[in-house]
Amino acid sequence: MTVSVEEQFRIIMKGVEQVVSEETLKQKLSDAQKAGRPLRIKLGLDPSAPDIHLGHAVVLRKIRQMQDLGHRAIIIIGDFTGQIGDPSGKSKGRNALSKEQVQENALTYQTQIFKVLDRDKTEVLFNSAWLGKMNFEEVIRLAATTTVARILERDDFQNRYKNEVPIGLHEFFYPLMQAYDSVAIDADMELGGTDQTFNILMGRTLQKTLGKEPQAALFMPILEGLDGVEKMSKSLGNYIGVDEDAPSMFKKVMEVPDSLILKYFELATDVHPDRVEVIRRDLEQGKNPRDVKLELARIITSLYHTAENTRKAEDYYAAAFQEKGIPQEIPELIIEEEKDRLADIIPLLTKAKYTASNSEFRRLAAQGGVQLNGEKTEDFDYVLANGDVLKIGKKRFVRIVK
Amino acid sequence: MTVSVEEQFRIIMKGVEQVVSEETLKQKLSDAQKAGRPLRIKLGLDPSAPDIHLGHAVVLRKIRQMQDLGHRAIIIIGDFTGQIGDPSGKSKGRNALSKEQVQENALTYQTQIFKVLDRDKTEVLFNSAWLGKMNFEEVIRLAATTTVARILERDDFQNRYKNEVPIGLHEFFYPLMQAYDSVAIDADMELGGTDQTFNILMGRTLQKTLGKEPQAALFMPILEGLDGVEKMSKSLGNYIGVDEDAPSMFKKVMEVPDSLILKYFELATDVHPDRVEVIRRDLEQGKNPRDVKLELARIITSLYHTAENTRKAEDYYAAAFQEKGIPQEIPELIIEEEKDRLADIIPLLTKAKYTASNSEFRRLAAQGGVQLNGEKTEDFDYVLANGDVLKIGKKRFVRIVK
Repeated sequence: MTVSVEEQFRIIMKGVEQVVSEETLKQKLSDAQKAGRPLRIKLGLDPSAPDIHLGHAVVLRKIRQMQDLGHRAIIIIGDFTGQIGDPSGKSKGRNALSKEQVQENALTYQTQIFKVLDRDKTEVLFNSAWLGKMNFEEVIRLAATTTVARILERDDFQNRYKNEVPIGLHEFFYPLMQAYDSVAIDADMELGGTDQTFNILMGRTLQKTLGKEPQAALFMPILEGLDGVEKMSKSLGNYIGVDEDAPSMFKKVMEVPDSLILKYFELATDVHPDRVEVIRRDLEQGKNPRDVKLELARIITSLYHTAENTRKAEDYYAAAFQEKGIPQEIPELIIEEEKDRLADIIPLLTKAKYTASNSEFRRLAAQGGVQLNGEKTEDFDYVLANGDVLKIGKKRFVRIVK
Repeated sequence: MTVSVEEQFRIIMKGVEQVVSEETLKQKLSDAQKAGRPLRIKLGLDPSAPDIHLGHAVVLRKIRQMQDLGHRAIIIIGDFTGQIGDPSGKSKGRNALSKEQVQENALTYQTQIFKVLDRDKTEVLFNSAWLGKMNFEEVIRLAATTTVARILERDDFQNRYKNEVPIGLHEFFYPLMQAYDSVAIDADMELGGTDQTFNILMGRTLQKTLGKEPQAALFMPILEGLDGVEKMSKSLGNYIGVDEDAPSMFKKVMEVPDSLILKYFELATDVHPDRVEVIRRDLEQGKNPRDVKLELARIITSLYHTAENTRKAEDYYAAAFQEKGIPQEIPELIIEEEKDRLADIIPLLTKAKYTASNSEFRRLAAQGGVQLNGEKTEDFDYVLANGDVLKIGKKRFVRIVK
C-alpha cells in the first residue's frame, strides 16, 4: 500500500453519512499499514432478494474504492437466515429458501457484485458455515451477551412493541446472528446503509464483549428509488438493477425524478464533486433537467455496460420514447408477474376505462390504434416489461409497473 | 385401574389451588382409563439446589397420590439449564454447574424424592438429552412459537423491564426450555406451585402449537417457610429438608409460626380434612399452639422417619429445648456458610452487643456462661447449624440462621 493513512481516510470518508468511529477507522488503517495486511471489510447480503440494484451499489462502490486502496471485501451471504426464513410464516418477505435456491441466488449475486467489486480482492462466505454449527448451549451464551431492552431499542421492534404488533422471539436473533458474523470473520469494518446502524453497531459491541477488536462501522446514505420517496428496493418495484440490459437501465435513469438528479450523481456515479457542483448551478439557472438526466443515464449505464451498448441504449431511448411524443407524466398500471402478457391485462384496461370493452381494445389494436413504446402492436402474447408504455387510441397513455 | 374417573378427579383436586383446565384433566383421566395406560405426570426440578424440602413435598405428595391411582411420574432434572447456568454471571443463584456436580445433585435428588414418590412408577430424565441436541435452526423454530410480548408478560420479567433492571436475552429461553420438556416427554399433566403458572402454561401452549395434546396443569398452594412470610426455600434458610435427621426436623416443625399451623397440617401431612377442622376449632378455643405443634411435628417427622426415630426426636426435643427454658421468640443472627464455627461469629455477637467484647465472650464461656441448645459449651470449633440457639449470660438468646 503506497497511499498514506491520512489520504486513505480522506478517500474513504467521501460521501459517507456516518462513521463509528473516526478513531477506530484511523487506528484500523494505521495498524493494517504497519502490519502490511489489508483490512477485512464486511458486507452482509440477504439471499432472499438476489437482485443487486443501484441502492446496493452505493455501498459496493465504496467497498470497491477501498479495494483499490488494497483492502479486502468479505461478502457474507446470509444463507443461514435464508434457509430458516421466518418460521412464523407471517411475513411474506421471509419465506424459507431451499439450499438449492440459496446457492442459485448466491451465484446470481456474484455475477452482479463483480460488476462493481474486484474479484481478486473478494471472499464470498456463507454464514451457515458457522451459525449452522452452533448448538443450543452456544446460542444461549450468544443470547446472554445482550439484553431484551437493548434489542427492543431497535426502531422497528420498538414501534411494533408499542403498537402491539407481535414480534416473534426468533426475530430477536436476527441482529445477533448478523453481529456474530462479524466475530466469525474477524471483520475490521462493516458497511451498510443508514438504516442498518442497529445491526452493524451490534456487531461492534459483540466483538468487544467477546474480547475482539471492534470493527469500524461506515454508513452510506440511502438512495431513493424511481418513485422519489421510498428507499430503492426490489419489492417496491422502484429500482434499477445492475444486471439490467443497457436500454432498460438507460430508460429507467431517465425516469429518475428531477429532485433526485444531484443525489444520483453523488451516490450512483464517480463524477467529481466539482462537476456535480456545476450541474447543481446549471439546474438552478434553468437548464432542462431532461438534458442533465441524459448525461446521468449515459454515465450510469456506462458503469455497467460497454461504451457501444450505452450509445445504442441512448439511440434506442431517443427513437422509442423521446421522439414519439410520449408525455412525461402518465398514469401507471400495476400488473402481476404471473399475468404479464398483453392479452392478460386487457380486462384491467377495460376495468380502468382505458377502453370501453375487451373486444373494443382488440378492434382498436387491429386498426393500428394501440402502441407499445411508440410502435404499433397487435402482439397479444408480448410479455410486458416494467416501464413499458402503452398508448391506447389517440390520447390515453399508461405505464406498466410490475 | 379400578378407581373411577370421577373418584380420581375428586382425589386429585383435593388441596389443589388451580387447575387448567378441569375439562382437560377429566378428558385425560378418561382417555387414559379407556386406553388402559397411566398418565405421564411431569415435575421439573432445578439441579442447582438439590435439597428437597416440605415446600417441594407439597407437590411430590400430590404426585404420589396420583401414583397410588396408577399414574406415572416423570421427573425432569433440568441439567441442561444447570450446566449453562446464568452466562451473564450476574445472578449468584445461577452459577454453571459441572457435569459431575449435576450428576451428583441428581443422585441427591433421587434419594430424597423417593422418600415421597413410588420408585416403581417414576422415570427420572435429564433434559440435556433433548435440549443438548438442538441446533441453532431448531432453537430458532422453537423461539418462533412465541412472541416477545408474551414472554414479557411473566411477572418477574415485566417488573424488571418496567424498572429497567436488565434482562439477559438468554433468560427468555428458560420458560421455553421448560415448555419444550413437556413436548419432549409427552406430558399429560404438569404440577407446580402457583408461582410456576407462567412456565407450566407455556408448556401447554407449546404442545398445542406443535400439534400435540396439551397437558393439564395443576397448581398447588405455596408453603411459607419458618419465617412465616417467604416461600420455603433453601436460599432463604427458612426450610425443613425431607432429608434432615429426625431431631432436626422435629425441632424445625416446632419453630413453625402459630399462624401457619393449619396450613402445614393441610399441605405437609395426610391428616384428614375433618381432623384439621377439629384442630382449627381447638386453636380458636384457646388450646396452646405448642401442644398442637407437637402433634404436627410428630406427624411430619414420621412421614420421613421411622416411628422409633420420631419418638427419639421428640424426647430429644423435650430434653434439649422444652425443659431448658429457651423462649419462643428469640432474635436471629444470620451467619455465612464460610464462617460458621462458633469462634467465627464472636465478633458478630460483640458487634450486635450480645457481649461487651470478644474476650468477654471467651471469659464467659470459660465460666460456663454460654449455652448451645441448652447445654454449656466451650467448643469454639463447633460448626453452628441452622436453628442452633445460643444463650449468652443469663438472659440473652440468639438463634442461628445460615
